[in-house]
Amino acid sequence: MSTGIDIWGKFIPLAEWGPLVDEYLRDPAKGPIINVAPPEVDDRPYDAIFIGGGAAGRFGSAFLKARGGRQLVIDKWPFLGGSCPHEACVPHHVFSEAARMLDYARLMSNRYWCEDFENVKKRASILEIRDGFLQSRGAGHGVMNFQSKEQLNMEYILNAEARVIDKNTVEAAGRIFKCRNLVLAIGARPTPPPIPGVDKHGVVNFASMLHPDVLDFEPNRCVIVGGGKTAIEYGSFFQATGCQTTILTRSQLMRTKGLKHVDEDMRRWVEDAMKRRGMEIIDNVEPVEILGNSHATGVRYRNMTTGEEFTAEGDMIFLGTGERPLSDQFDVLGLELDEKGHIIVDATMQTSVPGVYACGDMIPGPREMFKARKSGVTAARNIMGEYTEYVYEEFPDFLHSTYEVVWTGLSEEEARQQYSNVVTIKLPPDGVRREDCALPVGDGSMFFALEGMGENGLLKSVIDGDSRKILGLQFVAFGVRNAFQYLDYLMQKMPGGFTADQLADVNELFLNEGYPQLHRLRVGGPLRDL
Amino acid sequence: MSTGIDIWGKFIPLAEWGPLVDEYLRDPAKGPIINVAPPEVDDRPYDAIFIGGGAAGRFGSAFLKARGGRQLVIDKWPFLGGSCPHEACVPHHVFSEAARMLDYARLMSNRYWCEDFENVKKRASILEIRDGFLQSRGAGHGVMNFQSKEQLNMEYILNAEARVIDKNTVEAAGRIFKCRNLVLAIGARPTPPPIPGVDKHGVVNFASMLHPDVLDFEPNRCVIVGGGKTAIEYGSFFQATGCQTTILTRSQLMRTKGLKHVDEDMRRWVEDAMKRRGMEIIDNVEPVEILGNSHATGVRYRNMTTGEEFTAEGDMIFLGTGERPLSDQFDVLGLELDEKGHIIVDATMQTSVPGVYACGDMIPGPREMFKARKSGVTAARNIMGEYTEYVYEEFPDFLHSTYEVVWTGLSEEEARQQYSNVVTIKLPPDGVRREDCALPVGDGSMFFALEGMGENGLLKSVIDGDSRKILGLQFVAFGVRNAFQYLDYLMQKMPGGFTADQLADVNELFLNEGYPQLHRLRVGGPLRDL
Repeated sequence: MSTGIDIWGKFIPLAEWGPLVDEYLRDPAKGPIINVAPPEVDDRPYDAIFIGGGAAGRFGSAFLKARGGRQLVIDKWPFLGGSCPHEACVPHHVFSEAARMLDYARLMSNRYWCEDFENVKKRASILEIRDGFLQSRGAGHGVMNFQSKEQLNMEYILNAEARVIDKNTVEAAGRIFKCRNLVLAIGARPTPPPIPGVDKHGVVNFASMLHPDVLDFEPNRCVIVGGGKTAIEYGSFFQATGCQTTILTRSQLMRTKGLKHVDEDMRRWVEDAMKRRGMEIIDNVEPVEILGNSHATGVRYRNMTTGEEFTAEGDMIFLGTGERPLSDQFDVLGLELDEKGHIIVDATMQTSVPGVYACGDMIPGPREMFKARKSGVTAARNIMGEYTEYVYEEFPDFLHSTYEVVWTGLSEEEARQQYSNVVTIKLPPDGVRREDCALPVGDGSMFFALEGMGENGLLKSVIDGDSRKILGLQFVAFGVRNAFQYLDYLMQKMPGGFTADQLADVNELFLNEGYPQLHRLRVGGPLRDL
Repeated sequence: MSTGIDIWGKFIPLAEWGPLVDEYLRDPAKGPIINVAPPEVDDRPYDAIFIGGGAAGRFGSAFLKARGGRQLVIDKWPFLGGSCPHEACVPHHVFSEAARMLDYARLMSNRYWCEDFENVKKRASILEIRDGFLQSRGAGHGVMNFQSKEQLNMEYILNAEARVIDKNTVEAAGRIFKCRNLVLAIGARPTPPPIPGVDKHGVVNFASMLHPDVLDFEPNRCVIVGGGKTAIEYGSFFQATGCQTTILTRSQLMRTKGLKHVDEDMRRWVEDAMKRRGMEIIDNVEPVEILGNSHATGVRYRNMTTGEEFTAEGDMIFLGTGERPLSDQFDVLGLELDEKGHIIVDATMQTSVPGVYACGDMIPGPREMFKARKSGVTAARNIMGEYTEYVYEEFPDFLHSTYEVVWTGLSEEEARQQYSNVVTIKLPPDGVRREDCALPVGDGSMFFALEGMGENGLLKSVIDGDSRKILGLQFVAFGVRNAFQYLDYLMQKMPGGFTADQLADVNELFLNEGYPQLHRLRVGGPLRDL
């Protein structure tokens, strides 16, 4: 085994980082990339060693470092940033951008400057798009390594396994490191559901489909198992490329356990839009078996009410189901786990063993970026003596179909259970066909409006007519995800809540998604539906 | 002259409104569309008559009506909503969406599923896109008429000139209406600059180019006079279609009088991106003459430093210069005006004549939607006895190039004049080539990042390192305009300002524009540049 490279004190320009990461990805045996301060620069013991340099470990490290502490982050991959830029959020966004652009190419086929994609070219290559991502992946990784080293002055060891000896001792790159605290942040990995045949060729998940030796053929027909975010996002992409896709889901689409506060108007708009694009969505069913010899040919599934069995044919079977935290690796510490293998932590992110913290996808709760980063920062704060609790009960959420689908707060159904005077504001309004309503409209759907396609999306707000507080907001269209971060913050942080009157007071950048203007049209008197 | 139609009490489905509006647009002599309550339904005198049913008049009317008042809005066009959906914001957004999609088609030419637009098709038709907008325009107008009538219960007379007899008396549709207050809201119209030759065929502005008898040829080469929003937005569209475009501007691009708080990093990013797309941008020049016989062939212009004269050739000359309020029509009222013809109002929107209010583009200040709507609402509040002042000094702003360009608060240059410890956070960071940095990235630029194009945009925040308050935010990319509405609100309304620490506390919906995460990476200690 190579002893790797020591890059401490050597400036590596951003442009050189991408090729370097790619080199180590191709040949992991090159050994560790060591960026550790020598004693003459920093001889303090480590306040914390972060095992795992994904969102949680990297952000926690940066924060601890900025607080004046000394940190070390160790990752088995040759880059910081974790699964997000490598196999999760970033490729998902590449595929979702492709889905959106291909959807545009289909809807706009032979109109204006657009070629007749729908009837002439018909398909895009999933493999080509996947390979395009793979070829550029190192450059994205390089940004994290560069930023962490040159701008945030973090110490790290990459491309190295960390072996936890005890809660104050970690071995990596052939060296022993001592620390006051340990932060565990190596995340989760997809686990196949217990269905016969999941090991057949052609059965993939979001991570394995990135491997050229796993998905080594252009799929023609896809069956997806699952009805949550991953199922919708990857399914919408496959369908948009021209790979006919069927979704098999136990619950209704978006009614899986992982998704909270899903409004029925929004849910139905998303499902209908997917069906309009030719997707088959079959709910109330469970998978029985993956069919085929060495290569999968379809999924046998069972109606959960009648028990009847059917077959959905496909040459690619995509498992959009669960992930499991990688907590086994820390058995030596004797941590308390939940039944799914999550590490149990208190509100300071400390585990059952004092001085050992866990964060990100290793702990219960949403597997989302904000939670990973904020839990890492919370651990860092507490380690540095600033008592901080982090509760991630309520948060905005989103997914991609060929649209952005975003929501925060309560669904209309939830609001009606808690409030007696619920008012909704909607576009299109009730009783109006979407084809007849040119709104809501913003960049990305101007031409859908021009062509009267009824593909402009849905806007909805749920308000308490008495207190005038915004209870929930839903949107399906484009360019809105960023906005919901701040709408959610306003709803959670404005003293007394964020009211329809305050929303009406926002200086809108027109054309926009319509919340400020629609609320302004309504706040003159008692609130009524619009 | 026809006596028009009386639609009071008759339900007109949304789907029927579009064709109806189009019919009246084709033949204005069909007379007024009258939606006025008969005495047996409402015999109260009008609390206010709104002359002009654009953003200001329609929103003011809706608000006054909801407050329990009686309103009438009169508009010369057969629809409510004003110039925005007819010739301003909506076509601008259609053209800007086309610019963005055409830019995508060019940058992605022959990559992945995309045709070789840049080398094979090469051009899109400006006329075809314009005509597509014109054909669907009625449907957009229909939404406003439907919503105002069926959902907001407003009284209105459309397709009718209002004649102000005195401040309590208006004639329209052959009838006399009495009111307690008058609200003037008929906006502004583009005025040609005093250059010889502006009346030649081929010389257009944003409004006139929508007329098939004005722009009746496919332009091949365009010269734009002006360097502000309109010049950039329409110029970027023309260039994206393949019509080679030159901008002639006195000041630098975006340094025109109408634009405040323009950060130099942002400005330069926008200008450079336009030049990368082949646009010619010539500043420090003034137009001397529009050349040609009956049809324009170019613009003679003069360098403002050297006095040297040059010619820019073009078959379409686009005037991206000033507008003038239509205040002449109200001479009978003897209102006080400023030197540019704006009606002078106090902070309640009342003019120099008590009981007469003015709003929207008739008064000084930004010609923006939020100001039109909020000034109309302010007039309504005050008329209904609720004393309200409206100050529109500070607001977020944006424009389209082939990107969304958005900003709020102070530029870095302004911040450094007022604060001694200014910190900036930027992507790409200083000293890094944009081609080498895969960030910032979000939907719409994933493939630009994959292909290493350096077209992912710019993110910048300007922070007071002492108070940790966010002073200014800038962004060039996609999907961010909506977010800035709420970021601006947070910066203006959070008690004590909105700090980097609060921004770091936002639950981001990843991938996003990066403010929450970048601030979180930095807030652990004293703020430093990133």
